[in-house]
Amino acid sequence: MRVFNFSAGPAALPEEVLRQAADEMLDWRGSGMSVMEMSHRGREFMSIHEEALTDLRELLQAPASHRCLFLQGGGLGENAIVPMNMLGKRDVADFVVTGSWSQKSLKEAGKYCKPHVAASGETADGFTRAPKRGEWQLSDDPAYVHLCTNETIHGVETFDIPDLGDIPLVADVSSHVLSRPLDVAKYGVMFGGAQKNIGIAGVTVVVVREDLLDRALSICPSAFEWRTVAENNSMFNTPPTYPIYIAGLVFKWLKRQGGLKEIEARNLEKSKLLYDTIDASSFYLNKVERESRSRMNVPFFLADESRNEDFLAGAKARGLMQLKGHKSVGGMRASIYNAVPLEGVKALVEYMKEFERTRA
Amino acid sequence: MRVFNFSAGPAALPEEVLRQAADEMLDWRGSGMSVMEMSHRGREFMSIHEEALTDLRELLQAPASHRCLFLQGGGLGENAIVPMNMLGKRDVADFVVTGSWSQKSLKEAGKYCKPHVAASGETADGFTRAPKRGEWQLSDDPAYVHLCTNETIHGVETFDIPDLGDIPLVADVSSHVLSRPLDVAKYGVMFGGAQKNIGIAGVTVVVVREDLLDRALSICPSAFEWRTVAENNSMFNTPPTYPIYIAGLVFKWLKRQGGLKEIEARNLEKSKLLYDTIDASSFYLNKVERESRSRMNVPFFLADESRNEDFLAGAKARGLMQLKGHKSVGGMRASIYNAVPLEGVKALVEYMKEFERTRA
Repeated sequence: MRVFNFSAGPAALPEEVLRQAADEMLDWRGSGMSVMEMSHRGREFMSIHEEALTDLRELLQAPASHRCLFLQGGGLGENAIVPMNMLGKRDVADFVVTGSWSQKSLKEAGKYCKPHVAASGETADGFTRAPKRGEWQLSDDPAYVHLCTNETIHGVETFDIPDLGDIPLVADVSSHVLSRPLDVAKYGVMFGGAQKNIGIAGVTVVVVREDLLDRALSICPSAFEWRTVAENNSMFNTPPTYPIYIAGLVFKWLKRQGGLKEIEARNLEKSKLLYDTIDASSFYLNKVERESRSRMNVPFFLADESRNEDFLAGAKARGLMQLKGHKSVGGMRASIYNAVPLEGVKALVEYMKEFERTRA
Repeated sequence: MRVFNFSAGPAALPEEVLRQAADEMLDWRGSGMSVMEMSHRGREFMSIHEEALTDLRELLQAPASHRCLFLQGGGLGENAIVPMNMLGKRDVADFVVTGSWSQKSLKEAGKYCKPHVAASGETADGFTRAPKRGEWQLSDDPAYVHLCTNETIHGVETFDIPDLGDIPLVADVSSHVLSRPLDVAKYGVMFGGAQKNIGIAGVTVVVVREDLLDRALSICPSAFEWRTVAENNSMFNTPPTYPIYIAGLVFKWLKRQGGLKEIEARNLEKSKLLYDTIDASSFYLNKVERESRSRMNVPFFLADESRNEDFLAGAKARGLMQLKGHKSVGGMRASIYNAVPLEGVKALVEYMKEFERTRA
């Protein structure tokens, strides 16, 4: 029996993707090999790689100005890889701090430059909002502005992406990329670990505007230098072939669902159902301001936190898994990525209502 | 039908491992989840991770002085990650150059220090030998000595590992780790991409002596700083969970085969059969001196290279795949890693003999 999996990442995958991966495990389409066993330079894997890239570009509607790269190292790796690729001759980068992930990016950038906090979404209740462009205090000539457009731990999503003119916007989109259409042209760089909406841990997607590929510091490792990676079509070093294959299966699944417009409609429905349930009750609460609420990661608290363990045990008994909040904020968190079906969210809210009825 | 796969990496995996991965794909041992979907912080994946580490330590007979880490970035990533972790206050590192991989390591280290060539195995025939310790000209106070103990492209393996006293030996063991017992205590650092004998592309194994964990440069990205990775038990960033799971299955398979002593015996038999076939004929040749011949990667040439395409086409028709040599050296290469069975090598030498008979 498959459970409903609300993990923040690595996270639920579409069951169709898992079935196809299992079916093709010993022999990929008559090749006599598993995808895991293929040379990355061979015809078979090259076709898998090209198709994944083409489908990703189509889903994102990535303009010709932007390159899509597959790297390794995840979001935390990119926290160093971004400044090493983006600083050029500048020594300041600006950060909009909206939660744990942008805090980590800020701290890591301090190894390479003087990071400047342009705005913070921290309030007396913790990180509960995405500061508006009017609140950002940019420095004079930053190399770039860093923004985490969906904070996985705090459940804060940024919906308004401002035009910063000549200043490149670098966005950590790890936990909401592919959940809705994004206007790629507005971003200098988008990056994300794959283990939420893209696929599995071990591959990182970087989308970078071509004219930004000449800014790398000499200390940037070649394997993480975007120009080198781009010039070698993400094959400067052996790429994480199987994670790329799984990402490709997820992209095909997304296209079968109708693409990002359709997925956005489903994600709206799922997140509305969950937030409405929380808001309709004083038994549960979410502290994020309404217009910054993430559609992917929904942290919530029981008003009486002494019931937390009881709540989690009951959830587990119903096959509602991985609902415990991040240790840094406590409470609960339901991550409802693309692969979590509406039925999963329905089962969760039914359980929440039942728990409230029987315990209140 | 499964083929015999002589790819240099990503490479053949034991069929038992693939079958188990397929069987467990939708529901790992009653968890209701695929391993791909598990939080890396959850009980289920933590147990997979711990078991993989324990089995790896047991197979390597790693002493308590050494830490085993899982990272990302592969061998090429480590070419930068090693100097960033190992230079400390020194600005020279020594390199024994035995082929393409040590050449690449040397070049990349130049981003961070003055690399010194202590010895080279290059001859008029290309890289054909592993220089002996007596030939190494070490610099006065190198941060470390780098050695690629098995050159995947040139088929040169180093069997004598010298004692360098206080100078740490850093070995790129990517393409022969787990093929035979190695005395881990002799190495300051061993590293290897997983896509040969460990598992699949996307995870890198680093074995490092604990007292070397205090040498990292401040510019080293946190996600690749070995001390940070060690202190977080390889979970500073989200680890490549599924590649670690597959590595764990391979480690169990190796233990079932009888461990590294037994695997070494099989690898000796396989490589002897292939080299004997080459040496018994003037139709085929291998240029590597006998005592430096790799047991894992066997490059060979047809005396008449105009027959190369014909040879490869006939091999493919018999299900003998990925035998083309690396483009930088040409000819043929049979990589006969642990997962390539003796039957595969027998089929290859039968084909080689038949090809010689019918074409000579």
